[in-house]
Amino acid sequence: MKDIVLTGDRPTGPLHIGHYVGSLKKRVEIQEEYDKPFIMIADTQALTDNAHNPKKVSENVYEVAFDYLAVGLKPELNTFFIQSLVPELAEFTVFYMNFVTLARLKRNPTVKDEMQQKGFGYNVPVGFLNYPISQVADITAFKANLVPVGDDQLPMLEQTNEVVRHINNHFNTAVLRECKPLLSKVLRLPGTDGLSKMGKSMNNAIFLNDEPDVISAKVMSMYTDPNHIRVEDPGNVEINTVFKYLDAFDPEQEELKELKEHYKRGGLGDVKLKKRLNNILQNTLEPIRQRRKEYEENPEEVMKLLKTGSEYARSVAAKTLKELKEVFTLNY
Amino acid sequence: MKDIVLTGDRPTGPLHIGHYVGSLKKRVEIQEEYDKPFIMIADTQALTDNAHNPKKVSENVYEVAFDYLAVGLKPELNTFFIQSLVPELAEFTVFYMNFVTLARLKRNPTVKDEMQQKGFGYNVPVGFLNYPISQVADITAFKANLVPVGDDQLPMLEQTNEVVRHINNHFNTAVLRECKPLLSKVLRLPGTDGLSKMGKSMNNAIFLNDEPDVISAKVMSMYTDPNHIRVEDPGNVEINTVFKYLDAFDPEQEELKELKEHYKRGGLGDVKLKKRLNNILQNTLEPIRQRRKEYEENPEEVMKLLKTGSEYARSVAAKTLKELKEVFTLNY
Repeated sequence: MKDIVLTGDRPTGPLHIGHYVGSLKKRVEIQEEYDKPFIMIADTQALTDNAHNPKKVSENVYEVAFDYLAVGLKPELNTFFIQSLVPELAEFTVFYMNFVTLARLKRNPTVKDEMQQKGFGYNVPVGFLNYPISQVADITAFKANLVPVGDDQLPMLEQTNEVVRHINNHFNTAVLRECKPLLSKVLRLPGTDGLSKMGKSMNNAIFLNDEPDVISAKVMSMYTDPNHIRVEDPGNVEINTVFKYLDAFDPEQEELKELKEHYKRGGLGDVKLKKRLNNILQNTLEPIRQRRKEYEENPEEVMKLLKTGSEYARSVAAKTLKELKEVFTLNY
Repeated sequence: MKDIVLTGDRPTGPLHIGHYVGSLKKRVEIQEEYDKPFIMIADTQALTDNAHNPKKVSENVYEVAFDYLAVGLKPELNTFFIQSLVPELAEFTVFYMNFVTLARLKRNPTVKDEMQQKGFGYNVPVGFLNYPISQVADITAFKANLVPVGDDQLPMLEQTNEVVRHINNHFNTAVLRECKPLLSKVLRLPGTDGLSKMGKSMNNAIFLNDEPDVISAKVMSMYTDPNHIRVEDPGNVEINTVFKYLDAFDPEQEELKELKEHYKRGGLGDVKLKKRLNNILQNTLEPIRQRRKEYEENPEEVMKLLKTGSEYARSVAAKTLKELKEVFTLNY
């Protein structure tokens, strides 16, 4: 069976350069390599912790789609779809819930972390606790065997393969397909404030649709080495966020090495570095922003494209669901 | 808005006379009174604790349908449907899971009891723990406001109305409808062994499709008053299971009163009582068994009927789902 790739994003905000270096760039590379990767805008999953503000989710479906197209993901090379437009996924989820215990769900380390971050405890919405099962549905419905993920998502693939093996073994079938991570050396950008994660709510993100002056302002206020007070002081490359961004974006990596040595010795000012980064980011984001604007002017066209993709995704999921229902003898 | 009734059964075995006096008889009475009550064969729900043996569920879909038709529920007066043939219910379930906390689910007294009976503890399948939310879906999808239930199901209606009010209030809408129990003086038949509940696994049930000799044998071995050794001894009516069945089935309730007095005084033998009950049950079950046999010979016809009902049920659920998705702004 051919390789099938599934990726996606929760539509809770426009995408930022952290997403770009972390996953979007990679997706652009592989769109020629694999046959029409499935790219899911996970609105249903986003609702698991945004249920009281669904508009935030539905509006950002567009934003995420604009970003996809803007970075160069091509509709003819990928299957973009909206999760809630593939209702078969809810059916898979409801079936799979019978094969996973509460204890197992609660052991999921990623969900555990997220529950702690959100301060949920026992008051966690069942839907949120359950989202790894919903991911089992997403992956297996399309028989995806390759899932580009970061380390934090590996527990989801483990959960998926547990359900797959359990059902395949118990019913002596091969209807469900195991998956594995499509790992790549992912660069994780910290936020502009130097904190670990870039995020909208942290106010430390550079978005793909930021205007040039916004980008400049964000770059010029970036966190560097707080002990690097005067230009002539030696600086610490490791904690200087600007260098982390240059690692990810600078096309002249040899020159960058020299700059790092210079910074360590002293005599290289942060402003100079920031100007360099600003230039590079402006060059990178300029064509993305332009393409994005074109799509923003035609939201109906973009939705049409998502609907076409969703219809195709639906036909694939429906086929797998039919097979699974036959295994369960529910094919009335 | 007109009254809408929803009832149903989990297809895990053929129905017995406990179901008959507990709910089926009432349904036959109300089928003329309300506009096409929805009668759901809850296969998806039955899977929540039968996931590893789905054949038991799918086979019993037929048995339950035969029983419905046999007791006189008419296809033209009711909407019979199979739960899994209305996939919108899974979509509702997935949405509602975001509005119910794990703590709330675990507080459900009926689920608590059932979890204890089944010895689940933390190893409860998520689907089982979650079935009250799936019931919220079943009830609200059809805008049912009247749900004939026993006391043990009242917590499900409470849970339903909690979700309904929560969503209606938060989104300032009236899209979901509250429900109330359609209570009737329900006679609860104990098993033939005098234990509290009649059930297939308990081997203490008289099924609607039992043959005459099977019925006789079960009646003749029924639990009576263990202290009523000789005919002339005074007997205890309260603990004599035969009297409980006569309460439910005897058409001559005045005569029954006299028999009870006689039994209390002494001089009335259990065998005589059992023969009376056997006659009555034979008369009651004979036409049911005959009608059932006719349907058993045409399972395809019965399935056709269930599919027609399911299609109609689906159209109703789809309409409500569309309304709910509009409220959630997920109407792309």
